Amino acid sequence: MISFSSRLADETKYLRASEIRDLLKLTEGKNVISFAGGLPDPSTFPTEDIKKIIYDVLDTYSSQALQYGTTSGVTLLRKALVDFSSLRGITGITEDDITVTVGSEEALYLIFNTLINPGDIVIVEAPSYVSALNILRARRPELIGIELTQEGMNLDKLEEVLKQLKNEGKTVKLLYTIPTAQNPGGVTMPLENRKRLLELASEYDFVIVEDDAYGFIVFDGESPPALKALDKEGRVLYLGTFSKILAPGFRLGWLIVQDRNYRRVIEMLKASIDLHTPTLTQYIAAEAIRRGIIINNIPKIRRIYKEKRDAMLKALEEYFPKDAEWSKPIGGMFVFAWLPKKINTTDMLMKAMERGVAYVPGAGFYPDLSGTNTMRINFSYPKIEEIQKGIKILGDTIKDELSR
Amino acid sequence: MISFSSRLADETKYLRASEIRDLLKLTEGKNVISFAGGLPDPSTFPTEDIKKIIYDVLDTYSSQALQYGTTSGVTLLRKALVDFSSLRGITGITEDDITVTVGSEEALYLIFNTLINPGDIVIVEAPSYVSALNILRARRPELIGIELTQEGMNLDKLEEVLKQLKNEGKTVKLLYTIPTAQNPGGVTMPLENRKRLLELASEYDFVIVEDDAYGFIVFDGESPPALKALDKEGRVLYLGTFSKILAPGFRLGWLIVQDRNYRRVIEMLKASIDLHTPTLTQYIAAEAIRRGIIINNIPKIRRIYKEKRDAMLKALEEYFPKDAEWSKPIGGMFVFAWLPKKINTTDMLMKAMERGVAYVPGAGFYPDLSGTNTMRINFSYPKIEEIQKGIKILGDTIKDELSR
Repeated sequence: MISFSSRLADETKYLRASEIRDLLKLTEGKNVISFAGGLPDPSTFPTEDIKKIIYDVLDTYSSQALQYGTTSGVTLLRKALVDFSSLRGITGITEDDITVTVGSEEALYLIFNTLINPGDIVIVEAPSYVSALNILRARRPELIGIELTQEGMNLDKLEEVLKQLKNEGKTVKLLYTIPTAQNPGGVTMPLENRKRLLELASEYDFVIVEDDAYGFIVFDGESPPALKALDKEGRVLYLGTFSKILAPGFRLGWLIVQDRNYRRVIEMLKASIDLHTPTLTQYIAAEAIRRGIIINNIPKIRRIYKEKRDAMLKALEEYFPKDAEWSKPIGGMFVFAWLPKKINTTDMLMKAMERGVAYVPGAGFYPDLSGTNTMRINFSYPKIEEIQKGIKILGDTIKDELSR
Repeated sequence: MISFSSRLADETKYLRASEIRDLLKLTEGKNVISFAGGLPDPSTFPTEDIKKIIYDVLDTYSSQALQYGTTSGVTLLRKALVDFSSLRGITGITEDDITVTVGSEEALYLIFNTLINPGDIVIVEAPSYVSALNILRARRPELIGIELTQEGMNLDKLEEVLKQLKNEGKTVKLLYTIPTAQNPGGVTMPLENRKRLLELASEYDFVIVEDDAYGFIVFDGESPPALKALDKEGRVLYLGTFSKILAPGFRLGWLIVQDRNYRRVIEMLKASIDLHTPTLTQYIAAEAIRRGIIINNIPKIRRIYKEKRDAMLKALEEYFPKDAEWSKPIGGMFVFAWLPKKINTTDMLMKAMERGVAYVPGAGFYPDLSGTNTMRINFSYPKIEEIQKGIKILGDTIKDELSR
């Protein structure tokens, strides 16, 4: 058998495996309480409604729903998404501004691969979404992390960095943010901060990539309008996903880009990757919006996740050491924890797994891979009893580690 | 509104739009007989069977079929594909060798982006599949086209080129071929030639990418075993697709790669593009294989396409000028035609469209964009009456052009 290792393209050395997906493989089939994944609770899937929709779609649209489609996506869905976007405060767009993608992951891939050259300066939250960071890393930008607070990215710190870069004659290409119910922190940027961020973007002329994966999954207070809703310059590229509000197995996301020429570039890259997003699931999603299935399902998702979040915060309070800190998520699916500096969460993982608990070490969520004492803990998937039991085990593991 | 044109990554300038997809947009909603697309006849979709399967899948597997999955694909499907591959003569593989992709387009993107560096020598058929060429072009290889004969790639010519390159101290990285019912030619490489191609690959140590999109769509004689079936060195990367045998709207393909380390590289890139292929449609495809829906549907597809192919060849004989030549497809969905050199098919297209017929100019199918006098004509989608009427119009257009 021949080996391909000497035949690889040079850029392959910048590819990174997702620690999380490797971890999930390790826990497969084992009796482990996993806080490692980012899976929705399957009880939130509107399975019966989906069944009914599929039947109707195949009755009504089968020759289109099973056929090739256009790269930008099914018109019925893009029209439905125009209406749906208004629920996040986004108005003044048309279906032409929307490209349907294979999950919002593909939208991230498309954006970063069409905008970032090696050496370009890209600003992210620290910590931020690990898969986005991995796509970015393959583009070899200069990544700058801005600390995450309970109110999202620290904008004072951001402004300081922007000023300093300007003094050095450098410009920022792009800022990637998850402003609402952030992954991994679960925190949200208040409206005032959103306005200020847009002003800074305008002043320093950088593009904002807004990942609104959790925009509908806010259970404390109102979800602030998307950054895109406040964007008057077409500067914000907006990413939405059906993964948290309908079903992640569809791999359906969407991208709002107002510059028509840039959209054409994005579609050329998308066409070379997969021609277009699968058609049948686009019809299902369109009908799920039109029939109100999604909007009617959201209160249930919020209720279930709020209950789990509460259980997790309570357990953390009870079982984690007093000198640990953690985010107070107002939505989303995760808590992010900062442990005493002494602890290396990557080293501790095997011990935790032996005791029957998995989590994601936090270093990968930092652009500079710092945060070796941090971890991401998921509350959307495990059952409440598992959250209580698992956090106790995790707390004990940490305490043992501290007393070593 | 800000413009993104000054913000693009450098590689975007190597992206090419698919002429075909642009053409399809032009013909949308117009009363044009289109030989331009590559759409299956929707009457070949087993819609009722698919409906039944979806119902069963959602009853049996809903919490998996709607949930996130692994990057390599759903195990049930990969296992079914091991059995299914044996119908193409491929044995001795396991489900671990298979990665499920978003159409075989994604498999092409993954392979070319993990293997090709700028300047690498890549050999293709001339003409070849235009989307594959476009993905390749973005990698900036040295593309070499080997003429296509009624028996596939001209292997004498190939050997000559390989010898010459060797004399120049150059090595070939990869050869991309559609050996069975080729796109755009519809021709097939006989078994003896397949063996010889593998010997050449071994002697000159290059990788073969076998695109078997039409392996099951052969209607004259038996479909020869896949190149992969004859590959003892793990040298052939095999691409399959459900687009021609089930439904293209699922965007489901698969890739057989036997080098485990290379597979890992491919999966890292795939994970960064879309995390994984949509799950629900993978379960549907798995069941469609397991229940024999696909294999039982193939004779119907062959019958319908054979009839259309016959109608097209008859019409070409009747209406095209005597000094035009065209391929004699034994399968697939296309005829490729060589017109007198005087004709530029790109220039002629608007005239043909004004008369109510569309086709794809053939230049883009050539690695060097030669073939300005060629065209690809699809017979799988138009109705038989449309084929007769459309080829007459096209023949008249060509004759008028010749007499100008």
